[in-house]
Amino acid sequence: MRLIVLLLCIVLVGNLAPIQAQNKPLNKEYAKVASQIMGTALVEGEAYEKLEYLSDSIGNRLTGSAQLNQAIQWAVNAMKADGLENVHTEAAKVPHWVRGQESAEIITPAKHKLNILGLGGTIGTSLDGITAEVVVVRSFDELDKLGEAVKGKIVLFNSPMRKDIPTGQAYGEAVRYRGNGAIRAAKYGAVAALVRSVTTVSLNTPHTGAMRYDDNIPKIPAAAVTIENAELMQRLFVRGEKIVVNLKLGAQILPDTESANVIGEIRGSEKPDEVIVVGGHLDSWDVGTGSNDDGAGCVISMEAVRTIARLKLRPKRTIRVVLFTNEENGLYGAVAYGNTHKQEFDKHIVAIEADSGGTRPLGFSFKGSDSAFALIQEISPLLRNLRSDNVERSQGSPGADISVITDAGVPGLGLRNDSTHYFDVHHTDADTFEKMDRTDLALNVATMAIMLYVLADMPQALPR
Amino acid sequence: MRLIVLLLCIVLVGNLAPIQAQNKPLNKEYAKVASQIMGTALVEGEAYEKLEYLSDSIGNRLTGSAQLNQAIQWAVNAMKADGLENVHTEAAKVPHWVRGQESAEIITPAKHKLNILGLGGTIGTSLDGITAEVVVVRSFDELDKLGEAVKGKIVLFNSPMRKDIPTGQAYGEAVRYRGNGAIRAAKYGAVAALVRSVTTVSLNTPHTGAMRYDDNIPKIPAAAVTIENAELMQRLFVRGEKIVVNLKLGAQILPDTESANVIGEIRGSEKPDEVIVVGGHLDSWDVGTGSNDDGAGCVISMEAVRTIARLKLRPKRTIRVVLFTNEENGLYGAVAYGNTHKQEFDKHIVAIEADSGGTRPLGFSFKGSDSAFALIQEISPLLRNLRSDNVERSQGSPGADISVITDAGVPGLGLRNDSTHYFDVHHTDADTFEKMDRTDLALNVATMAIMLYVLADMPQALPR
Repeated sequence: MRLIVLLLCIVLVGNLAPIQAQNKPLNKEYAKVASQIMGTALVEGEAYEKLEYLSDSIGNRLTGSAQLNQAIQWAVNAMKADGLENVHTEAAKVPHWVRGQESAEIITPAKHKLNILGLGGTIGTSLDGITAEVVVVRSFDELDKLGEAVKGKIVLFNSPMRKDIPTGQAYGEAVRYRGNGAIRAAKYGAVAALVRSVTTVSLNTPHTGAMRYDDNIPKIPAAAVTIENAELMQRLFVRGEKIVVNLKLGAQILPDTESANVIGEIRGSEKPDEVIVVGGHLDSWDVGTGSNDDGAGCVISMEAVRTIARLKLRPKRTIRVVLFTNEENGLYGAVAYGNTHKQEFDKHIVAIEADSGGTRPLGFSFKGSDSAFALIQEISPLLRNLRSDNVERSQGSPGADISVITDAGVPGLGLRNDSTHYFDVHHTDADTFEKMDRTDLALNVATMAIMLYVLADMPQALPR
Repeated sequence: MRLIVLLLCIVLVGNLAPIQAQNKPLNKEYAKVASQIMGTALVEGEAYEKLEYLSDSIGNRLTGSAQLNQAIQWAVNAMKADGLENVHTEAAKVPHWVRGQESAEIITPAKHKLNILGLGGTIGTSLDGITAEVVVVRSFDELDKLGEAVKGKIVLFNSPMRKDIPTGQAYGEAVRYRGNGAIRAAKYGAVAALVRSVTTVSLNTPHTGAMRYDDNIPKIPAAAVTIENAELMQRLFVRGEKIVVNLKLGAQILPDTESANVIGEIRGSEKPDEVIVVGGHLDSWDVGTGSNDDGAGCVISMEAVRTIARLKLRPKRTIRVVLFTNEENGLYGAVAYGNTHKQEFDKHIVAIEADSGGTRPLGFSFKGSDSAFALIQEISPLLRNLRSDNVERSQGSPGADISVITDAGVPGLGLRNDSTHYFDVHHTDADTFEKMDRTDLALNVATMAIMLYVLADMPQALPR
C-alpha cells in the first residue's frame, strides 16, 4: 500500500515534472549556489588587497620590465595560495620597447614646455631631438589635402575625443590617429607625428598607447601631447604663427624577449577537457601602476576563481584563469596561448575577459550564436540585484586577449563596467590604485564568479 | 506765459524732487550709463584676445623671468593702445627664485617615479639629491607627536583638501602645510618636506605654491607631490613598509632683481586726486601659462578700464589700473606700490582686486564700513541680470595685492568668481588658456566696469 501510494506519487509527479524540470531556467536552477558565491565574494573577497599589492608593491608592468616578471611570479604564488590547480606559466616571445628620457618644447613663437609621452613602439630621436615646424590638422582628410606640404615638418593630429557618443565608440574613433598617425604623416614626408591624447578630460595629462609602423613607409617618431598643449598649438596655427617644436625621444626597440602567461585551474569533475577561460592582462604601460588597465581585470578573474575554490565547488567543466602577457604592445601573450592550445579549441566552451577597469559592473558583452545568447540570458537574472545582468550582443571579440580564441569560433564574453571615467586615466600616470572603490571591485568578482560557475557547471555546454 | 508755466513746473518738480533725488538709489541714477558700459563690454570687449596673447605668446611669468618682463612691456603697450592716460611702470625689487631640474622617486619598497613640483622659494638639494626614509603624517599634531623620531627623515604632509566646506576655506586649511611644512619638519630634524598638493582632483597633478623659511630653523628642501603619490606613500606607510625616497631639486635662490608694476589711468574730471585702484597681478608661477592665476584678473581690470575709455566717459574721480608684480612669491609689487603711494592713501577711495580666475562672476567681497557697504549695495542691483550682484562682507583684505592699501584703512573690494574648479588647476601646468570661457570673461569685464565707474563717478565718495 505504501509502496503503491509512493509509486503513484512518483508517476503523478513524473507526469507533471518533466516539462517543469526542462523549463526551469538556469537562474532558478543555480540560485542557491549563486547566493553562496555571492556571499563568499562579498564577505571574504580580497580583490582590493590583491590589487593594492600589484599596484603599489610591484608597480607598472610593461613587457620586458623587471616588474612584469615580478608580477608573473606574484600571480603564480597567489594562485597556488588561492587553492588553484595546475598553476604554471606558459612562455611567450614578446616585443621589448623602452621609453628612455623624453622631452619636448615649443621654441617659437614663445617658449612652452610640452608634456608628452612617446607612443608605445615609437623609434627615438637623436640626442638633440628633432627641431621642425609644426603643422596642425584635425583629421586624416585635412592631412591628405595638405599632402607634400607637410614634408620636413612635424604633424600634430588634433582630433578631440567626442563627448556626444558612447565612450568606447569615441575612443575607437580618436585612437586611429594614435595608431596610424605616424604612418599617414610619414607618407607625405613628415619628420615626426604628435597626437592629441585620447581623452575628454585633462590636467595637462598625456596618454600613451600603441602605435604602428608600415615597413614600406619611413618610420618617424611619434608622441602624445596633452589637450592643453594641442589646443595651444591649434590656436597659434590658426593665428598663422610659425610654430617650431623640439622633440626628444629616448625610445629604443630592443630585441624580443621572453615573457609568460600565468595559468591556474579548477579542474572539472565530469568533463575536465571542456574549458571555460577567464582572464585579463597582467602587463600594463610603463606609466601609473596599471591599476585600471588591467590590474583590476586580473584580480577580478583571480578572485572569481578563488571564490569558487574557497567554497570547494567543483563544476563539471574546467575553469582556467589566464593572465595574459603583452596585451598593450603586441598581443603576443594571446597569440602564444593560441599556439599552445589551439588543438583544444574545439573543447573551449567560452572565453571571458575582464579588461574594462574595476568600476561598477554593468553586465557582459557577448559574441556567439543566438542559442548561446539565450542561455547567457537565462543565467544573468542571478545578477539583477547587482544591476550587472545586462548582456549585449557584440560584433567583434569582447576582449583583445580572448580574440585569438573567439576568432576560432569559441563564444566570448566581456565583463562590462561603467566606463564614464575609464579613459580619463587610461594609459597615464594617473592610472593608480586610489581610483579603486573596494565595493565596486567586490561586485565585479561576484558577478564574474557567478557567471563563470554556471557556465562551467550547467548541464548542457554553451553551444557554438 | 510759457515762462511762468515753466517756472511753475520747476517749482512743483523742485518741491517733490529733492527728497526723491536724494533717495534715488545709485543703481537708478546710473542705469543709463551702466547699460552703455554693459553693451560696450559685451559687444566690443577683447578680454579673450588679450588673455590668449598673454597666455600663448608670452607664457608663464615668474618674477625674474624674461616672460614677466615681456608681459610688463606688453601691458604698457596695450594700455596705451586702449587710450589710458599716464601709462607707466613703477620699479619694484623682487625675489628671484628659479626651479631648475627636479625629480623624485620611491626607491624602496618598489620603484615608483614621483611627479613633483618644488615649492616656490625652496632651496635645492645636491646633484645626487636627498635619499632618506619617509614618514607620513596627516597633520602638524601627528608630527608633534612623533617629534625627534623624524630626525634625518623626509616628512610627507598628507592632509587632504576638504570637500565639505567652502572651497576657499578648504584651501586655507590645507595650504598651511605647504606654507609651514618645511619649518615644522625641520624643527624636529627632518631633512626634507613633501606636501600633498592642495587640490581635490588630480590626474597625478602636482601643484606648486609659496613656502616659507624661518631664519632660526635650518632650511630644508620642500616639494609638492600629487594626491596619487601621497596616497601611495600613505598606504605603504600604514602597511609598515619602509619607504625610501630620492629627491632632487635644482632650485636656486638668486639675488633680488628688478621688476615693475604697470599703471594706467583715466584721470578724474572733478577730483583727479581721488583714486579708485583696480587690478590683479601680472606675475604667475613658472608652470602652465597663469591664465587663471592671474592672467584673467589682469585682462578683466584692463578691459574694464578700456570699456570706460572707449565710451569717452570721464568720471569725477581717477580710475587707476595697477598690474602688480610678484604676488606669488613675495608680494613685493604690492609693497612697492605702498612705498610709492602711501602719501596718497588718504585720497585712495577704494581698491578693487580681480584674482580669482575668469569663471562666472558672482559679485564682490567687501571690506569697509557699514555706510560704505550700504552704498555698494545700492550699486550692485545694476548687475542683477548677470547674477554678479552679490556683495559679501569680508574680515580680511579681499585681495592680496590690495592688502597694503586696505591695511591703511582704504575700503577694499574683491571680484568673486565661481571657484568650484579654481583649485583644480591652481599653480599647475594645467592653468592654461583653453580653460577660459569667452562669455564668462566678458561678463567679468562688464561687472567690473560698472562697479568701477559708479564708484569713480558717484556724487559722494565712498566713505571710510
